[in-house]
Amino acid sequence: MNSLPVIDQASDDACCAPASAPALGAEEAKQKALVFKALADPNRLRLLSIVKAESSGESCVCDLTDPLDLGQPTVSHHLKILVDAGLLHREKRGTWAYYSLVPGALDDVAGLLATL
Amino acid sequence: MNSLPVIDQASDDACCAPASAPALGAEEAKQKALVFKALADPNRLRLLSIVKAESSGESCVCDLTDPLDLGQPTVSHHLKILVDAGLLHREKRGTWAYYSLVPGALDDVAGLLATL
Repeated sequence: MNSLPVIDQASDDACCAPASAPALGAEEAKQKALVFKALADPNRLRLLSIVKAESSGESCVCDLTDPLDLGQPTVSHHLKILVDAGLLHREKRGTWAYYSLVPGALDDVAGLLATL
Repeated sequence: MNSLPVIDQASDDACCAPASAPALGAEEAKQKALVFKALADPNRLRLLSIVKAESSGESCVCDLTDPLDLGQPTVSHHLKILVDAGLLHREKRGTWAYYSLVPGALDDVAGLLATL
């Protein structure tokens, strides 16, 4: 996949030189796409927004269901995706799990865009 | 959806005050999620990467199929999603369509993250 096919170069209507291999490799692209998949859902964006706005720096899962008008299993599913993507940190204390933004994680995603 | 239910406040194991309504509204979140959906695919990230790296500032669709080892219909499908999301600009000239980054679009996405 890294070698450039040359068969099209003889084409009558070739418009220009073939593009070089993408700066972004297949594996790296797969990794980077994962974090955008985590962000590609309105409810997950809203969950991040709530956790980010929390003055204490963390939100209890018990407080995240009502504002979104979703059941707790659905909210937990979305939170797990955000944790797996490295955007949220989860800490279990007693009955509840508490979620906080992973420091610098959103900046890192912005950095991914700058270095595409 | 904007009023906070109070039935849970009497719960024995309530951990803390209910979170306020998310800073990010449902409609706004839906809009913001669209651009992340466009970015949530490895091939689309690689297409952006190629177009961005092109010294002329634009890439012909005819040059985007080989580096990704994909057929032209698939590449065109991905390019359409990137255009619809406001990330790429498409210009038809003669036989071919040429794609360029919408100026500032990736910075705008980074800005979305900063203002969640």
